[in-house]
Amino acid sequence: MSDGERIAPAQLGLGDMDPEEFRSAAHRVADRVADYLGELERYRVLPDLEPGEIRALLPQAPPQSPEPLDDILDDYARIIEPNVTQWQHPGFMAYFTSMACGPGILGEWLAASLNSNVMFWKNAPASTELEERVVEWLRAMLGLPDAFDGMFTDTASVSSLLAIVAARHAVPGLEATDRGLGGRAGVARLRLYCSTEAHFSIEKAAVVSGIGRSGVRRVEVDEDYRMRPDRLTAAVAEDRAEGWLPFCVVGTLGTTSSTSIDPAAALAAICEREGLWLHLDAAYGGTAALVPEMRSLLAGWERADSIVVNPHKWMWTPFDASLLLFRRPEVFREVFSLVPEYVRASATDAAHNYNEYGIQMGRRFRALKIWMMIRYFGAEGMARRVREHVRLAGRFAAWIDEDPDWERLAPVPLSTICFRYRPRSLAGRSHEADVARLLDTWNQAILEAVNASGQIYLSGTRLRDRYAIRVALGNLRTEMTHLERCWELLRAASQALDSRA
Amino acid sequence: MSDGERIAPAQLGLGDMDPEEFRSAAHRVADRVADYLGELERYRVLPDLEPGEIRALLPQAPPQSPEPLDDILDDYARIIEPNVTQWQHPGFMAYFTSMACGPGILGEWLAASLNSNVMFWKNAPASTELEERVVEWLRAMLGLPDAFDGMFTDTASVSSLLAIVAARHAVPGLEATDRGLGGRAGVARLRLYCSTEAHFSIEKAAVVSGIGRSGVRRVEVDEDYRMRPDRLTAAVAEDRAEGWLPFCVVGTLGTTSSTSIDPAAALAAICEREGLWLHLDAAYGGTAALVPEMRSLLAGWERADSIVVNPHKWMWTPFDASLLLFRRPEVFREVFSLVPEYVRASATDAAHNYNEYGIQMGRRFRALKIWMMIRYFGAEGMARRVREHVRLAGRFAAWIDEDPDWERLAPVPLSTICFRYRPRSLAGRSHEADVARLLDTWNQAILEAVNASGQIYLSGTRLRDRYAIRVALGNLRTEMTHLERCWELLRAASQALDSRA
Repeated sequence: MSDGERIAPAQLGLGDMDPEEFRSAAHRVADRVADYLGELERYRVLPDLEPGEIRALLPQAPPQSPEPLDDILDDYARIIEPNVTQWQHPGFMAYFTSMACGPGILGEWLAASLNSNVMFWKNAPASTELEERVVEWLRAMLGLPDAFDGMFTDTASVSSLLAIVAARHAVPGLEATDRGLGGRAGVARLRLYCSTEAHFSIEKAAVVSGIGRSGVRRVEVDEDYRMRPDRLTAAVAEDRAEGWLPFCVVGTLGTTSSTSIDPAAALAAICEREGLWLHLDAAYGGTAALVPEMRSLLAGWERADSIVVNPHKWMWTPFDASLLLFRRPEVFREVFSLVPEYVRASATDAAHNYNEYGIQMGRRFRALKIWMMIRYFGAEGMARRVREHVRLAGRFAAWIDEDPDWERLAPVPLSTICFRYRPRSLAGRSHEADVARLLDTWNQAILEAVNASGQIYLSGTRLRDRYAIRVALGNLRTEMTHLERCWELLRAASQALDSRA
Repeated sequence: MSDGERIAPAQLGLGDMDPEEFRSAAHRVADRVADYLGELERYRVLPDLEPGEIRALLPQAPPQSPEPLDDILDDYARIIEPNVTQWQHPGFMAYFTSMACGPGILGEWLAASLNSNVMFWKNAPASTELEERVVEWLRAMLGLPDAFDGMFTDTASVSSLLAIVAARHAVPGLEATDRGLGGRAGVARLRLYCSTEAHFSIEKAAVVSGIGRSGVRRVEVDEDYRMRPDRLTAAVAEDRAEGWLPFCVVGTLGTTSSTSIDPAAALAAICEREGLWLHLDAAYGGTAALVPEMRSLLAGWERADSIVVNPHKWMWTPFDASLLLFRRPEVFREVFSLVPEYVRASATDAAHNYNEYGIQMGRRFRALKIWMMIRYFGAEGMARRVREHVRLAGRFAAWIDEDPDWERLAPVPLSTICFRYRPRSLAGRSHEADVARLLDTWNQAILEAVNASGQIYLSGTRLRDRYAIRVALGNLRTEMTHLERCWELLRAASQALDSRA
């Protein structure tokens, strides 16, 4: 068959792909994806590539004429699928694992086909009301009170930015929304507090919102990497004395490095006393609240002004989906509902017009995939899976703790373990700085060796200036065998070091 | 079969949906979507619903136990699919039409299955390099010079916010990124310029970035709703004299109300002379540049500092996908690359680490769907389709112009027509204010009547304080017959008014 014959008539016309051509292509894609999900482990989790290798396989110039659909799908299978880092792979234990579960993928497929843009009710009635319900469902599943309203955004970075802008708006007398922050004599500079372990998205939000990096005060943490309430209280007092205007505290429930959990109740008490907005970044850790017996870890979070929990992290929702909950929806609407005429005519107050609560006017129909996932697994089924990841993390932590050549570097409240190799043989060495340097080098080498295997993908971090290897669990396909394999690879890499030493 | 028998074993376990269950469900979804796309017109484009009707069909509490997948998919078909506003429907001519083409939908399906998070190269090598190539392809297809770097974001609102924050960072001596805007004696207030017709996302960006609503100066437009360069020059001079700090001009190429196109070359000349950042919101209008003979409409846009064009608007890409192009990538990196340790170890300079150019750390794999669409239609095929929409819009405009009872209210440079019903019979009436009020009321009633038909969905706007009906074309399924039907419905609604009068 010549190329010309493989071009569908619709491609040469003025319209879209013909629905019957779509049907046959969609069935091909369905099989391709089912094969992919069933045989994930035939791929390296981290592909063996140098920058530029894929670019070289892709033409520099766009095609002028249509290409056969078969060629496009074949190129996908040949060039793209094997050469992404496999976020779906059970050996992906880097950063926070972030996988897309089956019912969630099907939800994305349906949402992409509808292309429903959830700007406001009239333009998306079923999508808006499903979002309302799914927010209510998640709120209940997390054990949070009905006083929280909420919505989905794309990422925790945006959720936290919205919360910080709302907090800024709520500062009495500042009128930041109308008047801005600049060039105003007699107006104090805003100060925001988070721990030294908080995610860098908080600093980005401060930069974007005109507060500036220097408007962020990083509060010290305790030995378990949790924000120290006494230091927060002292910092606020000191700043007030120096003429700053404290307005917001961002606590983290599950920090990115060590998954430490700031003491929410203590932060809430300080914020209530000082009149500060409490925003909680529970993007990862909030998922633990699906498990009733784990909620005590987050005790006090229900007193926050706003909370972000990301279903696309430890809740297996295809990227993207971030849940932003807030107590005072009117503050968000005051900032963000600059409603123009062409929208106003269609607005209704009986349902959420979600674009009025955030930056983005256009909003994806994210509730569908989450609705399908919750129904498919059931709330108890989701809790059971989270519990299993915590159990697996506990097992791995025990292996580390029981091996005298390895050292755990942080508590494991959730599903992530931070540790390093520190062989007994080093115990007698005297030069502490040398040892510290050596351990950093060794552990980086171990991480690289494990990642080079293609079977497991780990990331590193620094904890109290020590290089730490992280094992982050959360993929529904990760089983004890994968964890055992990870531990084997780590030990093999450490032994290879020893034999070289 | 009992409910219990319809629950898959995997649902009761600890893992994901079984790949073979996924396969059969995926084939069902493929057929469902093919049916949907083939029979779109069996649905009302605007469903006949009151707020709350869908909520009432959805349980208040989440299910505790798994539900059969069949039930979930059946509920989707029964509750959701018919009750969204049908953005895919050929009769959707409201706002800007925004449809998802077949190859784009398939691209979303594959992207959802990979769940590739395009943060930085190591975590997404093929996805990063495909994004680089597709940005280059689109840049070439739009006739823009290689000096533009770029990336995909979710929406034009975010693209414009990033550009404005970058522009703020580029103000010499301001150090807004580090020091923030507030509480600084002797620092002038920032001023941003856009036309009275600019999208409200620009004002939102000013609010978010701490410039404030009052930091936005709305420049007057000419009779065709284009920003007046003379007024811009005067405004900048006046503001400088009053102690403001002008820093950015946002021109719009294709405004939301009337699709007017600001004079890019004149704005560029002013910005070059005055040392201002020129950002161009070409979210809708930029697509016209796919057609070589239409590029003169945008002449001068290649001199901008940053440009946003939305593939998810008039380029048939499933929502979301916004292309942000910029000349000085280093400015974006200086603002946004607050790179922490756990990312730094994996960074490379040989490829883009896209999270360093924007707010969001997590980024969807948007390049895939656009790549598949460009290859499926070919660059010439995309140009041919845009040309057809412009031709259809010209035909509709001619019908309005030729009918003495209807009046066009704005030029039609692109694919959107603004007009109103103004019957000859009103010509003799004396009270101008009464006539104006009457026309507003009548045209709103006409719009409502057309929308109530369920066959066509239009939106309205105000142009020079006159209510205008808008017909926006851009859906690949919209053909002359739909346009004729729209015109019939409009005239029938106007005649119904006449007979009541």
